[in-house]
Amino acid sequence: MSVTAKLAQQMIAAAERKADEIGVPMVIAVVDQGGNLVAQLRQDDALLVSIDLALNKAYTAVAVKIPTETLGSVSQPGKPLYGIHTADNGRIVIFGGGLPIKKNGTVIGGIGVSGGSVEQDIACAEAGLAAYKQ
Amino acid sequence: MSVTAKLAQQMIAAAERKADEIGVPMVIAVVDQGGNLVAQLRQDDALLVSIDLALNKAYTAVAVKIPTETLGSVSQPGKPLYGIHTADNGRIVIFGGGLPIKKNGTVIGGIGVSGGSVEQDIACAEAGLAAYKQ
Amino acid sequence: MSVTAKLAQQMIAAAERKADEIGVPMVIAVVDQGGNLVAQLRQDDALLVSIDLALNKAYTAVAVKIPTETLGSVSQPGKPLYGIHTADNGRIVIFGGGLPIKKNGTVIGGIGVSGGSVEQDIACAEAGLAAYKQ
Amino acid sequence: MSVTAKLAQQMIAAAERKADEIGVPMVIAVVDQGGNLVAQLRQDDALLVSIDLALNKAYTAVAVKIPTETLGSVSQPGKPLYGIHTADNGRIVIFGGGLPIKKNGTVIGGIGVSGGSVEQDIACAEAGLAAYKQ
Repeated sequence: MSVTAKLAQQMIAAAERKADEIGVPMVIAVVDQGGNLVAQLRQDDALLVSIDLALNKAYTAVAVKIPTETLGSVSQPGKPLYGIHTADNGRIVIFGGGLPIKKNGTVIGGIGVSGGSVEQDIACAEAGLAAYKQ
Repeated sequence: MSVTAKLAQQMIAAAERKADEIGVPMVIAVVDQGGNLVAQLRQDDALLVSIDLALNKAYTAVAVKIPTETLGSVSQPGKPLYGIHTADNGRIVIFGGGLPIKKNGTVIGGIGVSGGSVEQDIACAEAGLAAYKQ
Repeated sequence: MSVTAKLAQQMIAAAERKADEIGVPMVIAVVDQGGNLVAQLRQDDALLVSIDLALNKAYTAVAVKIPTETLGSVSQPGKPLYGIHTADNGRIVIFGGGLPIKKNGTVIGGIGVSGGSVEQDIACAEAGLAAYKQ
Repeated sequence: MSVTAKLAQQMIAAAERKADEIGVPMVIAVVDQGGNLVAQLRQDDALLVSIDLALNKAYTAVAVKIPTETLGSVSQPGKPLYGIHTADNGRIVIFGGGLPIKKNGTVIGGIGVSGGSVEQDIACAEAGLAAYKQ
């Protein structure tokens, strides 16, 4: 099983509502279990860099099966995975905002958000994920 | 003026309805006047290659300001622009399914569809564009 | 509204005068609000690496809507955005010399300078930006 | 000896005048004998694809030391160099608008123009080159 287009749109809508509540335009992306795009939305005036970051946060969360924030904590200089951010043709993001989507413990996709502070991005990604869990 | 997130979603929804009517899953992408992604959706079971093709058809339509089908007609072997399909870091698509979005004659974005035959892709792109023109 | 060719040339000319005053050859680039090149100039004997850096500093300033120097301060090891320098297909530059060009608070383009020390690059970028603000 | 920044700007100005006369916005690029950018200008409303094409036409003219139009004639399907348009990391352009800049028979740089029909591009490139020869 993997993330459907319908589910991806619901998660994006939920993340959007959180972004509107925070007041910062975001880019939100959802990928499937193969790490491939299902849906992506750039809110008006969201940063251009966030197009790449949102998609690759979602990809990273699937590719490593943990939140990008967690990956970041073990890939700082001096840490075990230092250097991983340049791997995989530059697709690995090592700061928060990317979360794996799980069903019964299995990763079925990922959601990535970019546009605000890392904390804001995480809040939106969590809001998007909550739309699935409900 | 450029394509907004709301307009992009409306155009994608219209293209989706056409795809459902045709019965072939599609990927639909909308970019702004700078060629940057606004929104993209991959319907369930749509081809993986269509993720790249839909986005780059939309990009191409903005980058050359004509439908990708028209570009294709002048870039066949022996024609004036033969070879352009490998330009611009591989982002140029020379078959149908990418259309510029115009407002008062000015290109404000592009829509690209991929997943079916070229004729089906064009039909969906036109359906998406019609949602804007209405 | 976005940066015009004429404005870009004026900004480049102003940045050039500053580079001549400093005595270090520079590459100066200006991009529009979509991050796409408007004009670029490499002064005689400027570093080859600066061709890429100047353009990508200008791009980065538009993509993140803040000076590249400011981005650098939050992307050092241990900082929130550490790792962003490898994002966006390697286009993100995290040291000084890239500035957003704003009109009434809206980013309409970016200017990037490379060739000297970071301080010299910043001085030239600021001189270029001042040509617009006048 | 190679193309200087001053010469590149003169050539671009001459090509610009021709583009204005024709009435089609162009992108004009000049590279040095190493194939590296010296100067580039995108006129207002010129096609986005032309940013890449103008630069790579200039590059190609230096890289093969003949006009891109001439290269095109020998790289059509069935011709000796068929396939070269995908070489060199996609930088080779095989239609007109790129000309080598020569001094006493030696290639010292290249000029590339894109934005109109191939004939219009060639006319502008020739106008730019004439500014040097005078």
